[in-house]
Amino acid sequence: MTDTRLPDVRGRGFPSRTALADAARWLDAHTAALPAEEVPLGDAAGRVLAVDVAAPADLPPADRAARDGVAVAAEATLGAGGYNPILLTAGQAIRVSAGDPLPPGADAVLPVEAAQTSPLGVEVLDALPAGSGVERRGEQAKAGAVLLPAGRVLRPQDIGLLATLGLDGVAVVRRPAVRILIAGGPRAGSEADAAMLAALVRRDGGVPELRGPFGPAALVAALTEPSADMVLVCGRTGLGADDEAPLALADAGALAVHGVALRPGDSAGLGLAGGVPVALLPGEPAACATLYDLLAGRAVRRLGERPADPPYAMRRVPAARKLVSEIGFAEVHRVRLTERGAEPVASAAVAGLAAVARADGFVLIPAESEGVPAGAEITVWMYDSPADAL
Amino acid sequence: MTDTRLPDVRGRGFPSRTALADAARWLDAHTAALPAEEVPLGDAAGRVLAVDVAAPADLPPADRAARDGVAVAAEATLGAGGYNPILLTAGQAIRVSAGDPLPPGADAVLPVEAAQTSPLGVEVLDALPAGSGVERRGEQAKAGAVLLPAGRVLRPQDIGLLATLGLDGVAVVRRPAVRILIAGGPRAGSEADAAMLAALVRRDGGVPELRGPFGPAALVAALTEPSADMVLVCGRTGLGADDEAPLALADAGALAVHGVALRPGDSAGLGLAGGVPVALLPGEPAACATLYDLLAGRAVRRLGERPADPPYAMRRVPAARKLVSEIGFAEVHRVRLTERGAEPVASAAVAGLAAVARADGFVLIPAESEGVPAGAEITVWMYDSPADAL
Repeated sequence: MTDTRLPDVRGRGFPSRTALADAARWLDAHTAALPAEEVPLGDAAGRVLAVDVAAPADLPPADRAARDGVAVAAEATLGAGGYNPILLTAGQAIRVSAGDPLPPGADAVLPVEAAQTSPLGVEVLDALPAGSGVERRGEQAKAGAVLLPAGRVLRPQDIGLLATLGLDGVAVVRRPAVRILIAGGPRAGSEADAAMLAALVRRDGGVPELRGPFGPAALVAALTEPSADMVLVCGRTGLGADDEAPLALADAGALAVHGVALRPGDSAGLGLAGGVPVALLPGEPAACATLYDLLAGRAVRRLGERPADPPYAMRRVPAARKLVSEIGFAEVHRVRLTERGAEPVASAAVAGLAAVARADGFVLIPAESEGVPAGAEITVWMYDSPADAL
Repeated sequence: MTDTRLPDVRGRGFPSRTALADAARWLDAHTAALPAEEVPLGDAAGRVLAVDVAAPADLPPADRAARDGVAVAAEATLGAGGYNPILLTAGQAIRVSAGDPLPPGADAVLPVEAAQTSPLGVEVLDALPAGSGVERRGEQAKAGAVLLPAGRVLRPQDIGLLATLGLDGVAVVRRPAVRILIAGGPRAGSEADAAMLAALVRRDGGVPELRGPFGPAALVAALTEPSADMVLVCGRTGLGADDEAPLALADAGALAVHGVALRPGDSAGLGLAGGVPVALLPGEPAACATLYDLLAGRAVRRLGERPADPPYAMRRVPAARKLVSEIGFAEVHRVRLTERGAEPVASAAVAGLAAVARADGFVLIPAESEGVPAGAEITVWMYDSPADAL
């Protein structure tokens, strides 16, 4: 946290900008994982498990039939075959369904096809070793074994496993409450930002709360209201006379960063209000999306104990054309993948959401690079491919 | 649809089983994409777009400022520089914010840093070509251009784009209503199946409705109730005396397939009730999950116009050990990925959800294969990596 006021950049320009990595570090230092909450199993898929879940007892708790068939003592089937059926009485050969506990004395389950009912009992048509068709006590897991580790994003099958344990709820990391404040009166893109940010926050496991648009005084008041885990302020971050969001944050708490060496979106800011991290996002929607994915969204994801990086799989492909980037700024270029490699979808780094929609993903060119030549291998963050958890 | 009754297999075994591909073909032939519905933008992320969305007008509709700065006629800046400022009057140099329409006569926007306010007007510190700092009418998209194609799974950024067009709702494919009927009285695994199937259906874009457990007569009645797009019956599909789900489906409509050459889960079935496709899933939870992913879930996904195949990315890795499979059955082996390759997590194909939870994914060995040797390249369907949309 800074105790010196950052300069008012309106009409003057940024004297300097914070490197993207430094801005991310500041934000990471001001966010920690939220506590756990108990949710019903029906709501738990996709949530982040807060604690290790261990088997309360052996799974299964006793030997049981692994298939539909006839439970027998294996030694009684010795020598049986299609041409040599062995007759067992009803008491020696008991029909069971998969999952039934084994009757006393039985240690194998004949498949249905190997057991023929006769008036005198059951004819066994096959010899079985002990344990055949049987699931042993503890075969799936021993009592105390960790079945699902803390931090796991719960799969549908995990929900089934938790139900098997007799649970009807589970402790998961609380979803971050993310307040989205739209700064300034109605302006081009403000509805787009609001709808998009709410969807991005939901994608990253947060619960968005949309508010505004707000003038400067109302923005200060909204910034100091309690009960959010993170605040996004969208719009009015730039160099115009009406770009009052950074000043509002300085008034409401502290403006720690204003100006990030990233394009699009270099007017972004970071700070604190009421101890809660606040990100100032530029109002141009493509820039807003960029800053959310690469910076502000880190906090949403970290609060919910998800990986901090943008949740996109990375793919190595050749650049179909030269990509030029200004030294001193990290630059995001939206690209689509063709058979020639990654093709930029628009001439400029800022190109609006229509260009973003044409893109399969984006390339982040670091600040120290002046770009990449055609044919060079680059890393594309793929919009439609969530990051591999491995 | 079949018009001959399939045999009652209880206590006898399957006379034959349908190949997995044939079962999938039958199901595909009985499912078609659902009609569209209009939803508010706030609910549209992740939904499947039902129609092409085109730009209603040029985007942007007129030339506008692409940055905060000072709008000027480019030719008036000719020769300007840090050592040669050119003075423009207030009428020739108008402060604009990014997104503002260009004032008449202006064709470029000076960055804030290149314009210095003086008592006489604005000093220009840099020469600009026409169009610099300007976003041209139609630069993002021309009127009528398709911005988002039908079938697109809407991204958060797409929601922003739709808002930019002034829309507050959008036509998406209706979510399939999937009735999940739990067959039989309380049994091991029935709560697990119910919770897991509901989560799987939601993952695939459906709306689950959980019912049961049902005895045989109530199951027939539930199968003939209208209003679902797809019905899953879970449990009571096998060879035991109480395995009455196939008979209930035959009574309620038609049982077209009973017995699929797939392990685990070979007692699965397919049919129709009231014209609606019905899948019979085995009650053992790991088998139930397998049959849902590889067979029943196809219908849920196709109804919602999503890709029919299981929604997992495929990864080619070596088999860390020999995998043995019986000819005549497709077999699913759950594996975890280690540095040696894909390691089976359990000795058998059916191993319960605890083993499934230890797995990173599964290998499907086709019916005509007797398995793969250690070191052979195999395809693993990865549980935590949704299929790449490309």
